[in-house]
Parts: sequence; structure tokens; C-alpha cells
Amino acid sequence: MDTISRIETSLALAFTRAQAPSGPPLLAAAMRHAVFPGGARVRARLCLAVAYACGDDEPAAADAAAGAIELLHCASLVHDDLPCFDDAATRRGKPSVHAAFGAPLAVLAGDALIVLAFQSLAWGTVGSPMRLGPLLLTIAQSVGMPNGIVAGQAWESEPRADLSVYQRAKTGALFSAATVAGAAAAGADPQPWRRLGDALGEAYQVADDLLDAVSTAAECDKPVGRDTALDRPSAVRAYGIDGALSLLTSLAKDAADSIPECPGAAPLRQLIAQEAHRLVPKSLSHAAA
Amino acid sequence: MDTISRIETSLALAFTRAQAPSGPPLLAAAMRHAVFPGGARVRARLCLAVAYACGDDEPAAADAAAGAIELLHCASLVHDDLPCFDDAATRRGKPSVHAAFGAPLAVLAGDALIVLAFQSLAWGTVGSPMRLGPLLLTIAQSVGMPNGIVAGQAWESEPRADLSVYQRAKTGALFSAATVAGAAAAGADPQPWRRLGDALGEAYQVADDLLDAVSTAAECDKPVGRDTALDRPSAVRAYGIDGALSLLTSLAKDAADSIPECPGAAPLRQLIAQEAHRLVPKSLSHAAA
Repeated sequence: MDTISRIETSLALAFTRAQAPSGPPLLAAAMRHAVFPGGARVRARLCLAVAYACGDDEPAAADAAAGAIELLHCASLVHDDLPCFDDAATRRGKPSVHAAFGAPLAVLAGDALIVLAFQSLAWGTVGSPMRLGPLLLTIAQSVGMPNGIVAGQAWESEPRADLSVYQRAKTGALFSAATVAGAAAAGADPQPWRRLGDALGEAYQVADDLLDAVSTAAECDKPVGRDTALDRPSAVRAYGIDGALSLLTSLAKDAADSIPECPGAAPLRQLIAQEAHRLVPKSLSHAAA
Repeated sequence: MDTISRIETSLALAFTRAQAPSGPPLLAAAMRHAVFPGGARVRARLCLAVAYACGDDEPAAADAAAGAIELLHCASLVHDDLPCFDDAATRRGKPSVHAAFGAPLAVLAGDALIVLAFQSLAWGTVGSPMRLGPLLLTIAQSVGMPNGIVAGQAWESEPRADLSVYQRAKTGALFSAATVAGAAAAGADPQPWRRLGDALGEAYQVADDLLDAVSTAAECDKPVGRDTALDRPSAVRAYGIDGALSLLTSLAKDAADSIPECPGAAPLRQLIAQEAHRLVPKSLSHAAA
């Protein structure tokens, strides 16, 4: 099965296991709305690519880790879009969860997706129970306090925030978890894989800042220009467009260079090259060529 | 160490592990505000009481399970108090988290407490890793879809809700998890303990409905009269005050009768008798005498 099919199957399985006619139907619909159809599933693909590079001896554990990371990412988007944060009316070209179902069900859908992510880890490691603890700790650390994505979002409510600390938590943490969990799911030493996730996480945040600054709404899957409107730290505000573009190129090279020698190194480098190309906003692609 | 000391120590340890100077300080403060000082910690006490009755051969696992259940309960209170739900200004005699820190940090504090609960389970089962999966699944099921406390809260957003399904999810689920997880943490067969949690969960929900209907704000730790104001299903609205009071008495007896014969049965029955007394609103205690 190819990577995208594995991810979609893992997510579908999680929903099948967690939903039943006895549950509240609108919450079930709101959760599905948040997850299907997905975006690029890039964190989950990264997790599976690293598991593959490490031998992938427990595919159920790797699929569960990838699915859990994607569910947590979707949960964070649902909560970030709430009226009390970005108040985003659209996401991935359709109404955001709160726009479609109201803020109460959006809060609860995010909560339930977080829970479902951890349940998925337990279901996926029934055949390899000794891997559950390390996977749970790696993934939970990338979401919670003090340096996970929830902490990253919280820096927007602090009177002062350091740009790199904020971005590392808000975006980088889940990318780092993707590579570390991919290796851990396959029973490999995760440490050599951390730098890959760190560099890609930084690259994605810079790309997101660029997209927010220069894109039209048609090119972006959410409202644009919000970093300035919300007085939010951003690489473009800190370094300018050209500086942010150089940083993005340099981070993509760092990421590719960090990949340890292993049988799956070549397809992984190819994935990163594709992503680096995809990340540059179309209106700037001549500058990065 | 007595039960309450074990719970407070378990919660303090979770915060110590998850917090660091590198994290956002307001989110850290909001999370502490939600958990300390606590309420009666009744779910956590129930969990430890059952673990004790079952031999408590892995106290670290039992403490972690009790702490996780309490963290999840606190997270649910933080989100239930949000402006888009109950819009409660106070909780446990002080400002609610959103009143003290704003809605964005209240959303994030709830999220981070959910994550912390699952991290605590992993930390507490390092010495008994085979117990992590069953504990995680038991506790996650009581929070998520389709029948956990998040699903329970979501029934308030549905056009139709069955009172018993709503109450079983909203309140009962975490009580049932407390007894089942207490037994699982001690390596015992959890099934004989489920009825105890189910009956106590129902009793607490009926008591909460009574409190909402008849108490003054001074007697209650949150605003009163909200079930009617929010057109919410309630045992008092369904059966009247006397009917709800009879139901409460009968459920407390069911709970006590369900306790399997074991060395810790006597202190557990005592705990339930105390709680049954404490649950009746003071203004009604003559009627229940």
C-alpha cells in the first residue's frame, strides 16, 4: 500500500473504532469535517517515510503514529480557527469547523480528536506493547507543555514571545515528533532523525509566514495577511521577504543533509526536494529558482 | 501516604515534569489555576480506593491513573465554563479559567491538561509497561467518542438528546473509568468493578441536577439554575425534586451493594456512605434523612 493510502486507512480505522450510533451525530460529523478530505498530510507522510527508512518492522505501530500525528494536527487547526483565536471562516477551501458547526462543537471536536490520537496509538501497538510508552511520550511532548504546539499557540497570548521559541513550538514540535516517532515505531534509535524533523518544521513555518504575507486567498487554504493583522511574530516581519526565502532554502538543504545513510534515504531526499519546491509561494517561485 | 496526599502528589509531579522555564508562563498559570486547589477529587479517590481494594501492587500506576482522571475532569470543567458553553464566571469559589485568563488560554489550558493526563499514564507505567495500553484505552474511552464526557457535552448541541445517554456520557463515563482503571492499575480483573462506577456516576449527575435546581449560589461552586436557563436535560426536570431525591438514594445503595467481596470493601463502603450524605443539597437533607 502506498504512503497516502496507509495514512487514509489509518485515519478511517480510527474513526470506525471510535464512532457508534450511540454517539452524538453532530460531533461525529464535525470531527470528520476536520480530518477529511485532508491537506497534504505532510507530517504523517514524514513519519511513515522515516519508519520505512528504518525497516518498518511494525507497520501497525507506524500507521498509528502517523495517524495520531495527523489527528493532533487537525485538532490544532480546529482550535486555532476558533473565533477567540484566528476567527477563520474557511480552511482547506471549505468552511472551518466552527463556521460549519458552531464554536461549541468545534471546541469539542478538537478535544475528541486529541483523545482519538492517543487511543489510536494504543490500538496500533497491541502487537508491540513495549513501543506504546515511548511513542506516547514523544507525541504528547510535541503537543503539550512546555514546548508542544499548544504551548506554541499560547505564546500568542503572552505579552512577549521569542520568534524562534514560538515557531519551534507552534510548528516545529510536531515535525520533530513525526521523524522521532517514525523511527521509534520501527524500533530504531530515534535520535539521528531529530534534526530532520527540526529543520523541516522550521522550513514549514517560514513557508507559512511567506504564504501569509504574499499570497492571494486563492493560493492559500486560509485567510491571508493575518500575521500582521494579529500582530503575530513572523519570519517575514523579522527578516523581510528575501531573508525569509533564503532561510527556507537553507533549511530545506539542512533537512536533506541530515538524513542518516540508510536504505530509504533516496526516496526521503526526493520527498523533501518535492516539498521544498511546493512550499515556495507561486508568486515568489522565480526568486527561489 | 493517605489517599488525598497521593492524589495531590501525583498531580504536582505531573506539573513538575511538564513545565519548564522555556514554556509560556500564562498557560502554565492557567493550567495550575484549573487544578489547584481542587474540589473533592472524588473520581481520583474512587480510583485509588478500588486499586487499594485490589491489592495496589503498582502504586505508581494507580497514582498515575487517578491523577490522569482528575486532570481530564479539570480539563472538562475548563472547557464547559467557556463563554460558548456555560459562560460560568466562577468555579470552586474563584474566577473560572476563562474569566481569569481569557478564552484563548482557557481553550489551550484544557487541551494541555488532556495531553498531560495521557503523558502521566506513560510516566506512571514505566515500571509496568504492559498496563499502559489497557489503562490508556479505558480512560480515553471515558473522555472521547462515542460515549465519553466530550460526547456527553456534545449532546447539549444536538437537537434531541436522551436524558440517560446524555448523563451516562457527561458524568457517568469518568466514574466508570475510575473504578475500572483502579482495578486495571492493580492488575485485577476490572469487570466486577464497572457497576460501582456506573451507579456512582449516575448518583453524581442526579445530585448535580438537584444542586442546580434548589441550591443558593453560596452552597454551590458554580452558577445555579442553569439547566433550565440553558434548556438542558436534567433529572429534576424529568422526575421532579422528590423523584430525583429517591433516585439518588437508590443509586447510592446500588453502588454500595455492587462492591465485590475483598479486603478493602469496608473502607470503600464507608467512602460511598460519606459521599451519599455529602451529595444531598443541605436544603433537602431533612427530606432524605
